[in-house]
Amino acid sequence: MVKAAILGFGVVGSGVAEVLSMNEDKITRTTGGISLKYIVDIRDFPDSKFGNLVVKDFSVVENDPEVKIVIETIGGVGVAYEFTKRALKKGKSVVTSNKELVATHGIELMDIAEENGASYFFEACVGGGVPIIRPIEQCLAANSITEIYGILNGTTNYILTQMIRNGLAFDVALKQAQELGYAEANPAADVEGHDVCRKICILAAMCFGNHVYPDQVPTEGILDVTAADVAFAAGKNCKIKLLGRALEQDGKVYAYVAPHLVPEEDLVAGVEDVMNGIVVKGNAIGTAMFYGPGAGKMPTASAVVADAMDAVKHLHDPKAPAWAEGIEGLVGNADDLQYTWYVRTKKDIGLGELLGSENGEYAWITAPMTKGEAVSAYKYAEIQSMFRVLHQ
Amino acid sequence: MVKAAILGFGVVGSGVAEVLSMNEDKITRTTGGISLKYIVDIRDFPDSKFGNLVVKDFSVVENDPEVKIVIETIGGVGVAYEFTKRALKKGKSVVTSNKELVATHGIELMDIAEENGASYFFEACVGGGVPIIRPIEQCLAANSITEIYGILNGTTNYILTQMIRNGLAFDVALKQAQELGYAEANPAADVEGHDVCRKICILAAMCFGNHVYPDQVPTEGILDVTAADVAFAAGKNCKIKLLGRALEQDGKVYAYVAPHLVPEEDLVAGVEDVMNGIVVKGNAIGTAMFYGPGAGKMPTASAVVADAMDAVKHLHDPKAPAWAEGIEGLVGNADDLQYTWYVRTKKDIGLGELLGSENGEYAWITAPMTKGEAVSAYKYAEIQSMFRVLHQ
Repeated sequence: MVKAAILGFGVVGSGVAEVLSMNEDKITRTTGGISLKYIVDIRDFPDSKFGNLVVKDFSVVENDPEVKIVIETIGGVGVAYEFTKRALKKGKSVVTSNKELVATHGIELMDIAEENGASYFFEACVGGGVPIIRPIEQCLAANSITEIYGILNGTTNYILTQMIRNGLAFDVALKQAQELGYAEANPAADVEGHDVCRKICILAAMCFGNHVYPDQVPTEGILDVTAADVAFAAGKNCKIKLLGRALEQDGKVYAYVAPHLVPEEDLVAGVEDVMNGIVVKGNAIGTAMFYGPGAGKMPTASAVVADAMDAVKHLHDPKAPAWAEGIEGLVGNADDLQYTWYVRTKKDIGLGELLGSENGEYAWITAPMTKGEAVSAYKYAEIQSMFRVLHQ
Repeated sequence: MVKAAILGFGVVGSGVAEVLSMNEDKITRTTGGISLKYIVDIRDFPDSKFGNLVVKDFSVVENDPEVKIVIETIGGVGVAYEFTKRALKKGKSVVTSNKELVATHGIELMDIAEENGASYFFEACVGGGVPIIRPIEQCLAANSITEIYGILNGTTNYILTQMIRNGLAFDVALKQAQELGYAEANPAADVEGHDVCRKICILAAMCFGNHVYPDQVPTEGILDVTAADVAFAAGKNCKIKLLGRALEQDGKVYAYVAPHLVPEEDLVAGVEDVMNGIVVKGNAIGTAMFYGPGAGKMPTASAVVADAMDAVKHLHDPKAPAWAEGIEGLVGNADDLQYTWYVRTKKDIGLGELLGSENGEYAWITAPMTKGEAVSAYKYAEIQSMFRVLHQ
């Protein structure tokens, strides 16, 4: 029976405690058992059945040699970063759902883990419950991966789905998402694309082998998507989806986050509401897709606990880092690649394919060009919005 | 550099050699390298660049202590069974795409592997290139799995897709599949459902923990599906798909293979042509789906080589068996469960919901009942075909 501690008893942390309890039999059968010894949080939880495990001081966990597995569900790059380093330096394996921390400091933390004979796992950081990190690392290991893209944020996908299905305006759909608990009171990390940015950094590093940092990834959210764009896109049999995408081209890695017009026959066009769907292309497998709940208490806890179980199995044989430090010049600027663009303008410019005009606005599909070229070409027509068309 | 041998240089075996060669750099970076030393086949391959590796006698591989990894792509339960046992008994790890062998003798072979400090991996047996075995074993490990179902055979899915999309008769669609190389000259294993039966046995064992044998799995193919059924199903917004399905209910495991009317909003309804799609339901994650090419030379080789790479990583720490021996009374007869049925009859019987009538035939949707009850209820109306409706 291996002892574990949870750091941060919020939505995911409490879900982890519940999954450990609910599926105790199965977990014990396959790992010998994981016993929750501490929960570190600054709050008290007198009404929780796990309330008696709460300690306020991380050093209790840090200095208890019985604790072999630390489950970090604090989030952010503050104390989570500090506690993770301290736990790893004590040789404790750490598993996390903290995508910001992995995207920002992942390689450093994996190195510290390796130096101290510990593992550092983060399956829950991308796609919530959806298996994606291990399938890339293990099942697709024999492939040179050429591209990965997907719907990586359930909140924005819910908002866009409502805009597409019911013709709602962005503000109305956002308010609905907030009322249903899918969006936070401050939705910036979701709607501005930062959450997807962190996830595509992790996926790009997994697929292409070197750390890709958030500041290397041009990131657009969905604030510019209007009901008019949704309607024009429908006229081209496309749905507007916020994608994280990374690809390798001519020896460079490119990653970016942006809304796309996705043709209806593409796999991710059918990924609706709060679900996530991630497409991986490799030179042997062709195309595979992974689909499931990209967030939520129990699905995310499902992935975190699976990581904890794997960490138990690897206590005496910790896994090596999943990627290497970033290399100068490896990551190119994704805005320099050529894309087919959808552009909505105030004026008729007669350039490219006219997709339609409505309420004195015009929608165009361009020839392939860079973002800068598209801006230059259409700016005199007063660009209202401008999105890439996936794979065209 | 670990030495490997391929047994059987057919479509998959030659694909494995190609993937090992094509992605040599990546494979070496993550495993230290896999070097192909022998190919065992009774044929010669003078035109292949791997032709110089061919030996006819398996004992050359068996008795070469340098060979640590044996890749079995012979198929069937004859020499493949014998060679696998002999290789494992020499402590060599074996990876395979041979679903018949794993479904029939998997637990015995995993036990022999464990006794001899070797691994036995079979990711390619289900879903071809689609990652499914490891995701269930590792990523969904924290779940009690309640149900798994999917489109597990590309040949029959291609035939059904043609029948649905272009209104073809079964015979015409089969002939087309044969001309395109998707179906074999003798298509029995595919169209009679035996291939899916083996795969759902493996998935059921993975999900529920004990071996499920093919003869415990009621198996229907697609021979009874007609253009009339496809049309009637469309009237209920359903597509006819051949599914393998396994579930746990009241402590028993049930598995079966049969055509289903799948509602269009179900995830697998969108899986078309030769693709596979597998849905897993767990008590923490909810629902996840895995999608990709379920067969074909390179996708299958992608999974086999990934297994070989994992076997190299586990040379000194072989993995334990993935499930236990079957238990008397654990597997129930899936025909005893209740389903909603679609029944096409020659006579108007006025029982259940009349879906439509056409050319003197009648299509009905029944109340939930067992297969035996449905046959009893409708036999006087002369049953022409009878399929389950998924999740209704």
